[in-house]
Amino acid sequence: MSQSLTIALSKGRILDDTLPLLKAAGIELTEDLEKSRKLIFPTTDPNVRLLIVRATDVPTYVEHGAADVGVAGKDVLMEYGSQGLYEPLDLKIARCKLMTAGPVGVPEPTGRLKVATKFVNVARRYYAEQGRQVDVIKLYGSMELAPLVGLADKIIDVVDTGNTLKANGLEAQELIATISSRLIVNKASMKMKHARIKMLIDQLAEAVERRN
Amino acid sequence: MSQSLTIALSKGRILDDTLPLLKAAGIELTEDLEKSRKLIFPTTDPNVRLLIVRATDVPTYVEHGAADVGVAGKDVLMEYGSQGLYEPLDLKIARCKLMTAGPVGVPEPTGRLKVATKFVNVARRYYAEQGRQVDVIKLYGSMELAPLVGLADKIIDVVDTGNTLKANGLEAQELIATISSRLIVNKASMKMKHARIKMLIDQLAEAVERRN
Ligand SMILES: O=P(O)(O)OC[C@H]1O[C@H](OP(=O)(O)OP(=O)(O)O)[C@H](O)[C@@H]1O
Ligand SMILES: O=P(O)(O)OC[C@H]1O[C@H](OP(=O)(O)OP(=O)(O)O)[C@H](O)[C@@H]1O
Repeated sequence: MSQSLTIALSKGRILDDTLPLLKAAGIELTEDLEKSRKLIFPTTDPNVRLLIVRATDVPTYVEHGAADVGVAGKDVLMEYGSQGLYEPLDLKIARCKLMTAGPVGVPEPTGRLKVATKFVNVARRYYAEQGRQVDVIKLYGSMELAPLVGLADKIIDVVDTGNTLKANGLEAQELIATISSRLIVNKASMKMKHARIKMLIDQLAEAVERRN
Repeated sequence: MSQSLTIALSKGRILDDTLPLLKAAGIELTEDLEKSRKLIFPTTDPNVRLLIVRATDVPTYVEHGAADVGVAGKDVLMEYGSQGLYEPLDLKIARCKLMTAGPVGVPEPTGRLKVATKFVNVARRYYAEQGRQVDVIKLYGSMELAPLVGLADKIIDVVDTGNTLKANGLEAQELIATISSRLIVNKASMKMKHARIKMLIDQLAEAVERRN
């Protein structure tokens, strides 16, 4: 009997870039997911289903075993802390940079720096490594607004084209990490469904290789 | 000289229901905000501007003084913890209920309960008051998926029509709090801009009164 597999993914760029890789691994959607309000989707492989969850929730579903595998950005994994997960493959998709950013041409304040971000764990670690005391302010969205209205001196956010920063009079400053999406695997699933997951990893690795 | 005022709001139901109240207080938008990607909007009162932020970020902007006042759901305030804010007025809009919910007809597990929610502080407080040991799993969205795939036994979420629960085979169970949106005020602003903010509160209070 074939082993069932549940894959957690988020809508948007990660989904768009993962679908061709899954296709190469023999897994295709049977309906148009972007138009649906459903959260669970069957695939052309009767033993494989997809869960559509928030990007930040993918590691949670996988760590707790509600999904066997998932695709998550390295930014999300750095923030979540990935000790509870295996991260066997860099899918080399949804690439961007995790950066600090601030208002163009404004020097850093001499006092304590205020940094707004949804990546609060990453921010604390980054500045602690520099021995720098900062106030980290947790935001859930639209980080680029914070420096414009005095909530923070700087932000930490992912930067792709840089258009969002530019439109708000901000500039990228320090590079914290280069980001791409990773395949993550639940630790128990890796043992219990080893053959099936090994096959998926190999097929995805090959598709990534061919694509790059 | 008239005192400037920055108001933080979130898009969606809160914005839709707050605009008529602000209008009654002499504050109107000058452009169609739903269609814009901007985050800062002028109003017909040259001293008043609106910031559009995530619902969960409204208390942060107001507590840190990046906005003088804001409109936030009681659910968000219960989760955020509102010791750093004044909450002078119940706007009686965007009413809903904060509830526990679980699969229809499934009895509670006898062991430790797993509860998935974005309201983790509320959840811990609620079950602690009942002397009940639970595992709280933080999610950022689509809580209704969690019980369907075994991530959790129950969820805690806001319920309005109940359609989201129903569509997922879930039922509302215990009522944690009845929710409506509140006017919140930065503590320093309340002192420094007292006359302006007092006027806004009085005008909004009157509009709420007339509306109910
Ligand atoms: O450099 P750019 O090409 O402008 O891309 C950067 C934007 O992309 C990310 O947001 P995303 O679109 O992922 O959505 P979010 O606001 O929900 O995080 C990020 O938070 C920036 O807003
Ligand atoms: O009982 P109902 O009328 O179905 O409403 C409940 C839904 O509304 C809320 O989500 P919201 O639409 O505010 O968006 P969110 O998913 O971003 O929280 C909540 O999380 C439920 O999903």
